[in-house]
Amino acid sequence: MQFVSAVQWVRVLVRLKGFQKLTPVDEALRIFFDALRIKKPRAESVSLDSALNRVLAEPVVAREDLPRVDRSAVDGYAVIAEDTVGASQFKPKMLTLTDRNVVTDKQARQLWTGNPVPKGADAVMMLENTKQVGNQIEIWTPLAVSENVSRKGEDVKKGETALAFGIRLKPQHLGMLAALGITEVKVYERPKVAILATGNELVEIGSTRRSDQVFDVNRHVVSALCKELGAEPVDLGIVKDDFDEILGKLKDGLGSDMVITTGGTSVGGSDLVPEAVSKLGKPGVLVHGVAMRPAMPTALAAVEGKPVLVLSGNPVAAMFGFEVFAKPLLSRLQGLAQDETRPTVEARMSRKATGALGRRTYLRVLVSRKEKGFVAEPISARGSGILSTMTKANGYVIIPENREGLREGETVSVHLLDNIGVAD
Amino acid sequence: MQFVSAVQWVRVLVRLKGFQKLTPVDEALRIFFDALRIKKPRAESVSLDSALNRVLAEPVVAREDLPRVDRSAVDGYAVIAEDTVGASQFKPKMLTLTDRNVVTDKQARQLWTGNPVPKGADAVMMLENTKQVGNQIEIWTPLAVSENVSRKGEDVKKGETALAFGIRLKPQHLGMLAALGITEVKVYERPKVAILATGNELVEIGSTRRSDQVFDVNRHVVSALCKELGAEPVDLGIVKDDFDEILGKLKDGLGSDMVITTGGTSVGGSDLVPEAVSKLGKPGVLVHGVAMRPAMPTALAAVEGKPVLVLSGNPVAAMFGFEVFAKPLLSRLQGLAQDETRPTVEARMSRKATGALGRRTYLRVLVSRKEKGFVAEPISARGSGILSTMTKANGYVIIPENREGLREGETVSVHLLDNIGVAD
Repeated sequence: MQFVSAVQWVRVLVRLKGFQKLTPVDEALRIFFDALRIKKPRAESVSLDSALNRVLAEPVVAREDLPRVDRSAVDGYAVIAEDTVGASQFKPKMLTLTDRNVVTDKQARQLWTGNPVPKGADAVMMLENTKQVGNQIEIWTPLAVSENVSRKGEDVKKGETALAFGIRLKPQHLGMLAALGITEVKVYERPKVAILATGNELVEIGSTRRSDQVFDVNRHVVSALCKELGAEPVDLGIVKDDFDEILGKLKDGLGSDMVITTGGTSVGGSDLVPEAVSKLGKPGVLVHGVAMRPAMPTALAAVEGKPVLVLSGNPVAAMFGFEVFAKPLLSRLQGLAQDETRPTVEARMSRKATGALGRRTYLRVLVSRKEKGFVAEPISARGSGILSTMTKANGYVIIPENREGLREGETVSVHLLDNIGVAD
Repeated sequence: MQFVSAVQWVRVLVRLKGFQKLTPVDEALRIFFDALRIKKPRAESVSLDSALNRVLAEPVVAREDLPRVDRSAVDGYAVIAEDTVGASQFKPKMLTLTDRNVVTDKQARQLWTGNPVPKGADAVMMLENTKQVGNQIEIWTPLAVSENVSRKGEDVKKGETALAFGIRLKPQHLGMLAALGITEVKVYERPKVAILATGNELVEIGSTRRSDQVFDVNRHVVSALCKELGAEPVDLGIVKDDFDEILGKLKDGLGSDMVITTGGTSVGGSDLVPEAVSKLGKPGVLVHGVAMRPAMPTALAAVEGKPVLVLSGNPVAAMFGFEVFAKPLLSRLQGLAQDETRPTVEARMSRKATGALGRRTYLRVLVSRKEKGFVAEPISARGSGILSTMTKANGYVIIPENREGLREGETVSVHLLDNIGVAD
């Protein structure tokens, strides 16, 4: 157990008053983003097979038509559509097979899916609708012009933008790049996020600890959250609640695109991080204390336009502070054209849940698929330090500032943190 | 353009009949999985910070209580709850401050969030509800026993299973592992998936090609799909439509946990892959032709209990064949306790869409958030070769076998392939 100096104690009591004025979440976001100067990320070239989940840095314009030529979309016969007019099972038409790459009147040329359609032909008769009789085929159905043909440029036209920049490359986008013959692709560099844990009570996992010490959780969680979103974590380690040590580490952190600290942000005696951040450069701390639960003690800061996010030392609060403030920021730092949001499902509340009037509450829930749709079960917890509420939950529900809580049976939108289980 | 031998042609006509008997999707899945012998994957140890998205191979049992001792959940004073009974703003109680690690009658010990609660104390008074007067504090509200205390073992009890095996490790799970001081974690090895593209028309991206050749798309897409799901792709390259070449590559592929081929599966003349698979071992091809659209020509096979998935050469059909048959399989090959499913949203159809009676149709849609909820816009396409339908879509809707199509305005469940955009 650690005692604080009288000076620190007085400072705490002074700050208490300020802390009771909490900034609403939306206002906090606006103030934070307004103070930032987010530069367009640098681009780098990567091979197609290393590009999964990277963000495309330039539009991909087709250098040629896709397909390059008219191709058959089925296995069958290239024909002239006009020759098929009136064909039926009762009145089949007969066409003569040819081996040449040109089809003329009353001729048919056999081909497979993907084969170029020979000159003269303008449609492809499906194999299933024909019968071969000697060197002729019998056809039973009429065709429209271009039927069963993948026309030149039908997929993408030469000069057309096949992929817009600022999208995250998923397998289907890599497929498009491959189809266009692209081997190297320009993507944005991954933003670097410097992560610092503060607190006299913290020790690194793997070390021995005293009864008044706890293992640092937050660096590991924040690092994983960054990786999940496509950012590169830079570990600044753990520091004691020492102003100069914190200041030194924060300076190192400014070499990255963003700094995230955990701990030392509440009204506690070791509330040194926001002060150190403000000493680091202008404008410093913009918001300290957000009208949300958990993560109320979050502080938002900017140093010469660079974001510094000061998260609570409580792991659950740190995760929600990250969710609300770091996530949209990382979308922009990566050059994404639009913010990535978690998937949501509509679910019915299995029982009522209480919020906190005037604060936005992030309620952890376990959502499961029942016979009559999704049901969200609140995971009860008294403190934001209860880590098992996060591992038992697979989503969260937002209780707005103007609501005291949610009713049993009420339909809510669940933001998914994990996979949904099927009915139990 | 390539011609086929008379022998091949006859074989095609013979098979045509069989192909017209398509196996329903659910039956195909059942037949496929019943024939497989999926072994429990091997486990390996990885460090905590390398464990993100890996699958936990053993339950994590807490070796000690979490928290290890009673801790304060707030900044304030450790007190004896009984001493606070009757306290109010009009009738405050006075407690004497102590520096010792023991609290006795009418005493209070200052502490910060996370500090161990000293002996004798059983509750913590929030700083905000007190006022310091000399070496005493005035308190205005009564406390219940354990109020504002994170009790020993409250998060996880010693001997309790903190994390079940078979879950995919997300940031919150890594947080739990860190809190328990775990530095190394047993995870299942990533399953290896051998990927082979077949087709005389295919060339690798980066090479020059003739007008009748196309770049291979499918190996790149299937490889990315495997990576996305946590499997390790093993590239077997591209082979021509040559029975012996295909057979040789398939044999190499059996060193992996699963083999996926693309191309050479339709009723086309180069329909050699299913035959080669059946030659490889028993039971060979189980299903050839599935009542679905796209991906009808998919073949499902097993060789001595090992899965071989023969996908269409059409990129869109290959993607849906993978979605339906490889995805649930990869969940099991990874040792996941439950299948991972795509998140879904309920959306209204912007216009009607046609399916195919008797087949399960996977309709690509672009879902967006409008003022009145989500709207799904069908992406029209005539062929399964139209790659841009995948890059323009961000989800798909299943039209069941017994429906001719979907009505305009009908509410459907969209399986998400990508991020959802906000209202335009």
